[in-house]
Parts: sequence; C-alpha cells; structure tokens
Amino acid sequence: MTPPIVITVRAPDGPGLVSDIAGAVAGAGGNIIDVGQHTDLSTTGFGCRLEVEASIERSALAEQFAALAQRRELAFEIHDSKERPRVVIACSKTLHCVSELLSRVSLGELECEIVGIVSDRTDAGEVASRYGIELTHIPVGEDRRGQEEAFSEALGRLAPDLVVLARYMRILPPEIAESWNGRMINIHHSFLPAFPGAGPYAQAHERGVKLIGATAHYVTAGLDEGPIIAQDVARVSHRDAVADLVRRGADIERSVLSTGVRLHLEHRVMVFENRTCIFD
Amino acid sequence: MTPPIVITVRAPDGPGLVSDIAGAVAGAGGNIIDVGQHTDLSTTGFGCRLEVEASIERSALAEQFAALAQRRELAFEIHDSKERPRVVIACSKTLHCVSELLSRVSLGELECEIVGIVSDRTDAGEVASRYGIELTHIPVGEDRRGQEEAFSEALGRLAPDLVVLARYMRILPPEIAESWNGRMINIHHSFLPAFPGAGPYAQAHERGVKLIGATAHYVTAGLDEGPIIAQDVARVSHRDAVADLVRRGADIERSVLSTGVRLHLEHRVMVFENRTCIFD
Amino acid sequence: MTPPIVITVRAPDGPGLVSDIAGAVAGAGGNIIDVGQHTDLSTTGFGCRLEVEASIERSALAEQFAALAQRRELAFEIHDSKERPRVVIACSKTLHCVSELLSRVSLGELECEIVGIVSDRTDAGEVASRYGIELTHIPVGEDRRGQEEAFSEALGRLAPDLVVLARYMRILPPEIAESWNGRMINIHHSFLPAFPGAGPYAQAHERGVKLIGATAHYVTAGLDEGPIIAQDVARVSHRDAVADLVRRGADIERSVLSTGVRLHLEHRVMVFENRTCIFD
Amino acid sequence: MTPPIVITVRAPDGPGLVSDIAGAVAGAGGNIIDVGQHTDLSTTGFGCRLEVEASIERSALAEQFAALAQRRELAFEIHDSKERPRVVIACSKTLHCVSELLSRVSLGELECEIVGIVSDRTDAGEVASRYGIELTHIPVGEDRRGQEEAFSEALGRLAPDLVVLARYMRILPPEIAESWNGRMINIHHSFLPAFPGAGPYAQAHERGVKLIGATAHYVTAGLDEGPIIAQDVARVSHRDAVADLVRRGADIERSVLSTGVRLHLEHRVMVFENRTCIFD
Repeated sequence: MTPPIVITVRAPDGPGLVSDIAGAVAGAGGNIIDVGQHTDLSTTGFGCRLEVEASIERSALAEQFAALAQRRELAFEIHDSKERPRVVIACSKTLHCVSELLSRVSLGELECEIVGIVSDRTDAGEVASRYGIELTHIPVGEDRRGQEEAFSEALGRLAPDLVVLARYMRILPPEIAESWNGRMINIHHSFLPAFPGAGPYAQAHERGVKLIGATAHYVTAGLDEGPIIAQDVARVSHRDAVADLVRRGADIERSVLSTGVRLHLEHRVMVFENRTCIFD
Repeated sequence: MTPPIVITVRAPDGPGLVSDIAGAVAGAGGNIIDVGQHTDLSTTGFGCRLEVEASIERSALAEQFAALAQRRELAFEIHDSKERPRVVIACSKTLHCVSELLSRVSLGELECEIVGIVSDRTDAGEVASRYGIELTHIPVGEDRRGQEEAFSEALGRLAPDLVVLARYMRILPPEIAESWNGRMINIHHSFLPAFPGAGPYAQAHERGVKLIGATAHYVTAGLDEGPIIAQDVARVSHRDAVADLVRRGADIERSVLSTGVRLHLEHRVMVFENRTCIFD
Repeated sequence: MTPPIVITVRAPDGPGLVSDIAGAVAGAGGNIIDVGQHTDLSTTGFGCRLEVEASIERSALAEQFAALAQRRELAFEIHDSKERPRVVIACSKTLHCVSELLSRVSLGELECEIVGIVSDRTDAGEVASRYGIELTHIPVGEDRRGQEEAFSEALGRLAPDLVVLARYMRILPPEIAESWNGRMINIHHSFLPAFPGAGPYAQAHERGVKLIGATAHYVTAGLDEGPIIAQDVARVSHRDAVADLVRRGADIERSVLSTGVRLHLEHRVMVFENRTCIFD
Repeated sequence: MTPPIVITVRAPDGPGLVSDIAGAVAGAGGNIIDVGQHTDLSTTGFGCRLEVEASIERSALAEQFAALAQRRELAFEIHDSKERPRVVIACSKTLHCVSELLSRVSLGELECEIVGIVSDRTDAGEVASRYGIELTHIPVGEDRRGQEEAFSEALGRLAPDLVVLARYMRILPPEIAESWNGRMINIHHSFLPAFPGAGPYAQAHERGVKLIGATAHYVTAGLDEGPIIAQDVARVSHRDAVADLVRRGADIERSVLSTGVRLHLEHRVMVFENRTCIFD
C-alpha cells in the first residue's frame, strides 16, 4: 500500500478553520484517512496533522492549500514520504542508544538515513563500522571552545535534517542549540524535571525513588528544559544499586529515544511554546 | 466554565465527510474545541465526536445537522450534559467495585445518578445504605429462571440508561444481554481473552503469568466476548498466592471499571462490529 | 488460615547474621514461610522481615530472639497481627483519598481502625458521617500557630499508631513532623522530586510532561523530602488541561496512598537513612 | 568489584532449612550479600539463590554444601561467573529480536557468547555477518522431518548452554523441546495465554484488545505452554491497524526476550512444576 500523504497545518484558532482545511482536501479530490487536531489554549494556536490517501495529485493539494493560505492566516507543509531524512547521531562513551538507533534504521523501523556519527570519543568506532557509518571524532583536549566549533562545523558539513544526541555527554553552547532549534533531539536519562544535569541515576538512588525514567526532548538553550517529546519510567527497588539503575534505565532510554525520533520523522510532533503536541 | 456540547456522528466513510460535518458546526456559528475521528477499515464506517463551545444555540446545531442528514447518509446525536444519566449497579458478594463507583459518584467524578443496586445476595446492604441507595435483593434459590426474570423486571422498573455489572457473578441469559445491548457494562477480572469464565485468578496462578489484568466490556450474548472498553494490568510474581492475585486484581478492577463507565457516560465510546473506538 | 507471625529485625551487617536469625526461629520450633532481607550498602545496616507459621508459641520466639540480642547487636520486633492499629486521617478540601481509605478499611483491605478524621475544613463531614467516624474540625483563621497546636493536640488525644495525611493541604511545623517520625505518611500529588510544593499539576502542565505521578512518603521536617514508600505514574497528553491532570492524578493518588498505608500496616517498610526498603 | 559467587539451592521444605544453608555459607567464612528464597506451596518445594562475597574460597563453600547435602535432602549449584555461557539464536524472517540480542551482547549487557545463529531462512545473513556470527541455514523444502533433524543436529554440533528462539517461526517437535528442557527460551508475540499459536496480532486486532503483550517462556512439548519467565504489555487503541500492533509489539518482544535471557543467564529463574520463581 502506498503510504499516505501527510499534511501539517498551523494557524491561529478561529471559527470555520477545520471546515476550511477539510474543504481544501476535498477540493483536491482527497480522502482524509486520519486527522489529529489540537488547539493550544495558552497560545490559542491551532495545529493539525492530516493523512490523505496517496492516490491524488500532490500539486492539486498544494494549490488548494495555497489558495486557503491567501484567504486566512495559516501555514502548511505537505510532506513527501519518499524522501528519507538525513540524520546525524552524536554520542560519547555510552553506546546503547546509538546501537539501538542503527539497529532500528537497518530493520526499517525508522525511515531515515544515518549520514554520520559525531563523537568526542572513539568508543563508537566499532558500532559505527559495523553499520558502515563514518565516525567523526572531535576530541575535547584543552580547547573546549574549539571542540564546540568543530562539532558545529561537522554538523554543518553533514547537513542533516535531524541531529540526535544519543547520550552525547557534552553541554552544547546556546548558539548551537538555537541554530538546530526543532531539529535536534536529546535523550536525558531521568524523568525530567526530576534530576536534570549530571549523574541522574546517582541522584535517583540517593533520593530513594521507586521509579526511574528517561526523557526525549528538543534541545533548547536551557539545559534539559526543551519541549518534551516522549517519557517513560521503570520500577526500581531498594535492591537496586546505582549500577542497577543505570542498567534498567538504559532500557527506557533506548525505547524512549527511538520513539521520540520516530514521532519526529513521521511529522507527529508540533511545538506550542514549550509543550509538544503529539499526533499519534 | 460551561461544559461543551458533545456531538457524535456516524456515517459510511466518503470524500468530503469531515468537511461537511465541520461545515455544519460552522454554519451554526459554533467553534469546535475538540474533535476525535475514526474510520474503521473493516466496515468502512466513520465516526466522530466533537466538542463545541457551549455559547451557541443548540437548536441551530440541530437544524444544521438535520439538513446535512438529508443530503448524505449520516446519524448524529447532540448530547445534553445537564441531564444526569440513570445508572443501576448489579453486584454479588465482592463489593470493592460497587463501593468504588458509589464513592466516585459522590465525589462528582462520575456524572450520573445511581438509581438502584440489584443483587442476588444481601452483602451489599451496608454499602448501599451508606450512600442511601435502595438495594433490590433477588435471591436465586432453586428457580434460576425465575431469578433471571425478576432481575430483568427490576431493571425494567428502575429504567436506567446504563447497567453496570460490578462483579455480578451470575451469567445473564442472552435475551437480557441483547435487550441492554450497548447499555450494559461488565467488569471481567482478567485480561481478556485470557482466562474467560469462572475463577480467572486461580487460572492465572496455575498458569504462572507475570501480569494479571481486568477488562471492562459491553455485555453481549457471548460470555465475556463483548466489545472491550478498557483494560489494564498489574505485575505479579511467584510470591503471590491466589489470594494475593485477588487483592492486586481488585485494584485494577475498580479503576478499569470506573474508567469504562466514565468513557461511556462522556459519550467517548463508539462500537464498530465487536471493537470499540475510544475518543479520549 | 491463621495469619503468620511477622518478625522484623535490624542489625549492623556481619558474617553469620542470617544464620543466627534463622537459627533463632528454628530454636523456637518455627518454620519460616517467607523472608525478605536487605543490606544497605551506604550504612552497612542489615534488615529483614520474616513470616513464621503461627502454630508456634510466641513466647518461645521472643526468648530465642532475646537470647540472640544478648550475643550480638540486634533489634527485633515480633508483631501481633490480632491488634488492629489505630489510624487518624487528616484531610482538607479534596476528598478522594479519604473516601478511598475509608472504603478500603470497610472492605477489609486495610487492617486498621480509623479512630478519627482531622481537618482544617468541614468538607469531609459527609464522608466521615457516612462511615460513622468523628470529624475534628480545626479551622485556621488568623492564628496559624494556634491551629497547628490544636492539630497536634487532636492527634495526641486520638493517640494513633499512624497518621495519614490524605491531601491535608497545610504545611506542618517541623516539631510535629519530628514527633510523628516514621508514623506519619503523606501523599504528594506529583512524582517526587519533580514538582514539590504547591500546585504540582499546574507545574506539570506548564512543563509539558508526558507522565504525571504521585508519591506516598513518610513525613519529615523537610517539605516533601521524607523517605518514599510508593510511587506511580499515569500517561497524559497535550489534550489534557490542568483539570484533566488533576482528574487523572486523583486515580494515582488514591492507589499509591492506599498501597503506602498497606505496606506500613503490614510491617513491610524499613527506613535506612532517607531510603525505604520494601519487603513485598 | 569482583562479581559475587551465586549459589542456587533446591530442597523439600522443612524446619531449619534456611538456618542450615546460611550456616553452610558462614562455615566457609562467607558473607551473604543477597538472598532470594521461595517456598512453592503446591509442591512444598523450597528454592533459594544466594550471592556471597567473592573473597572466600570456592572449594570451602563446595565442601560445606556437600557436607550439608549428606545430612539433608538438598541439591545445590555454585556458579562461576567467569565462564561465559554458550548461546545459539534461532530466527526466521523477523529480525528485531536477533538484532537486539546481538546488540546487547556486544554492549556487555548480556554475559554470554553467541556461538551461532540457526535459521530456516537466509534473511538473518546481514545481521549475522555484521556481528561476525556464523549463520547456519536449514531450509524447509518438502521434507519437514528432515529439516527438524538437521536443526537438532546443528544445535548438537554448536553445543550451547542455552538456545534462544528469537521469532523462530517453526513449531518444534516434542522430542527437541524435551531434549532442551530448561535450556531453551522462546518469545511468543502475545500476552499468553491469550492468543497462542499463529498470527497473535491479527487475533488481537480482531478481538479489539486495548493492550498487547509478549511472553518469554521455556519451551516444552506443549505449544506456548511452557513456564513463563517474563511478560510485558503496551497500550494500543482503535487507531492501530494490525501493522501498528506488529510495530508496537516488536518493542515489547525485544525487551521481554532480553529480560528473559538475562534472568536465565544470571541464574535467577527456578522452575516449580510449570511456574517460574524469579529471584530479582
């Protein structure tokens, strides 16, 4: 079956909006098979995601929506499911997330092309070569600023549609975060906003929590403060030492990050201020 | 804040349907705040649930939809949130579900009026009197058939909009199930279709499962085979004897049944063949 | 079946400890049916909970353990399951937790006697009278200090074995928290340490989290910082307004608090510094 | 830190048993850091798993337990954590489970050596060569019996300590199942006992369940009837077509199978009749 055409629309909320959008699809002869819609009450912003049967002409759709965008304030995107987005993975010493992403791309579970791995360390060499992906090693040394610039340049050269920080353990300077706004996903190894920053599992053990978690979020200038895409938790007990929390947490991290990346690639995430709306 | 007007629509799927429905709301001057939509691929049936701001005239909405129903095949309901549905609870010896439902109604979590409790036993007497609800006791004795008829008559007399079997341990004859089709919810104390029928916790213990569950479903003529509204599970271990499974299971039963009843009362459940679509 | 005898033991960890404890039970002719054991690595403290078949003489057990306590440093308790602990519930305006606890005690799910409800408001009057429990109303007015003293005196007069803060919305002064150390359980309506203090659901909505939680913990002088007994979470989405988070959260609060109270009543909780060990 | 010595013990339950076992460890100068114990009430069988600090002489431990085994009926095993168990993976067309296992072994999350992959198809060729593992292809053709014999011979030649059926889609004849009794783990892609046999996701969609699951279990002669080691579920909705259930299910399958294999490799699973006891 041909995958459906995905249309995303953002607009200020107002009467007749859903009707107008549905009318634009109907005007192009399209049949809506799935619609997700959200009105954000804080911003009175409206967003929706439509799946339309692929049998119709894309150009007819584009014309209809362009015409609509002249009549009322509205931004739309018509996504082509045939283009595979380019993705760069950044990682450091811990490799279960990068291994998971590569495994899922190779299995066809994530529809994208991994165009490179960037790391401040060489640990990922084996897993990168296993999948035939180039590893760009950007060591830190004494010049932190230089490393950041080289990191930024490497991303620029690889020109990805999405950057995934898969346990990349260096804090990015705000200008990098900002230049990849909405196109950079990080996995934080705690249930944010609990335990931001370094050593969350040690913090969680110290506090004696009964559940640990992981959070996939868009990167913003504020550390671990960007819009949350996906979260999950696992049950732990007093029997679990910090090392056990790390092991149990790894399972959540890999699944939460994979989910976050998949939702992004399928155009299911829309950000209103600092909150995501997930069309699933 | 005035609660929104809820509209549910069913129709055969077809081009322009969403557009037409949204147009009907717009035509009445209404603003859609929430929409859930589903196309059932097996039946090509379409259903949707709309929440519309309560500021508009209900009669204008009704007119618009009536006009639309003349143009295309379509069934709609406009629900009045001010009428509290009448609910009858049936139970037997085990009382945590009936106690939970009564507690939630008294707290305002379930918007309905409990108009009576019907039981084949007298155990529920105390909990019924605690909440000032009449208990109709219909003992079984030797005449099973007579008990079923008396049960059916009691329901007829109480004239509920919904019957909730809250651990009522008698199997209903098909004719009762059919006459309350879509208006009778049962809690089964297992994760259906695992362990249907009697003694599911003993079966679960014997099989050595690691999770136990509960299922809220509409009652149909086939035992424990009706459309599933809500399910949940809890983790168990080898340390749990049958009595522990019963205790842990009780927690899931009460929350799953409460959820199922709430979804029904809020017009969030639509049945396509033997599957439910939940607009939540 | 007679419920087993529960023995809890604390001691500094050391070789032969388990052997000695098991030997004491064997010396009294007892058969161990369940044992939970924990060594806290930070404190090198050891704790265990034993269930012993009730057929033996309790005095023989006591003698054996007393003799052991003379040979090595060790504190033990032999719990009599026939005495029902006295419990006081404190609450304010929100009543689902108090309603849940009363329902569960009446169903026999929590083995204790509710000897009183204490509140800074009168809202709980109806639920208290429904179960025939006395409500002690201690209004706040202008004299915060006076209210705190009256609250403390009310607890003293009711002489409970356990105080449960079931959404009691006043912050207790440190001296009250300390005087009920290890005998006062609070439900906090967030997944601690995320969102401590006031308005956690509003905070959670603002942050855009995908899961909300609840935490049952012992009360200490530090606000929301005491040892955690039980936690759970529920999935939420962008569709949930603050009011929806409150409603979904209520379901977790009632089950988490009930679990925390049950674990305490069954002598399944042991505190090492600020972490609990749960023998379940 | 040197990993602890793991001792597993099975015996008929009886007074003084825990005391005797703890005494044997103490007699060898060992310090117990963790103990899990279970008495199976149906069989009155007793089992326990001890972790003892690795500083002591293994031979002293063996002597103590051998002496104990002469005094009372008792079977024990002292596991050497330095020997990496040999594991064979069998798979067919679906590869996410085999990919997951290989990824986890390479990351050090599963302490074993994958000595070969056996398949009735060639699909796993790429993933096998990625990790440098030999793939033994045993096609089916017209001679089902011959394929089964070749499969059995391949296992015999590879001489694994454990066989993992990672979505191997052929039903094994009872004699193979029996000859690997307790040493062969299968992942079934449903929450057993719901939906045994073929096409569980299609069955789950047809029934309209709200949760789907996966089950890791030991293989026995009865199809999908062996002792359950691990199970988990994921929430699904009416929006999920069969293909979505397959995708969501894959995430549970990989984690449940990995958990089951890890528990087995760490000697945390003990079977009593058809139920497992998990020491975790």
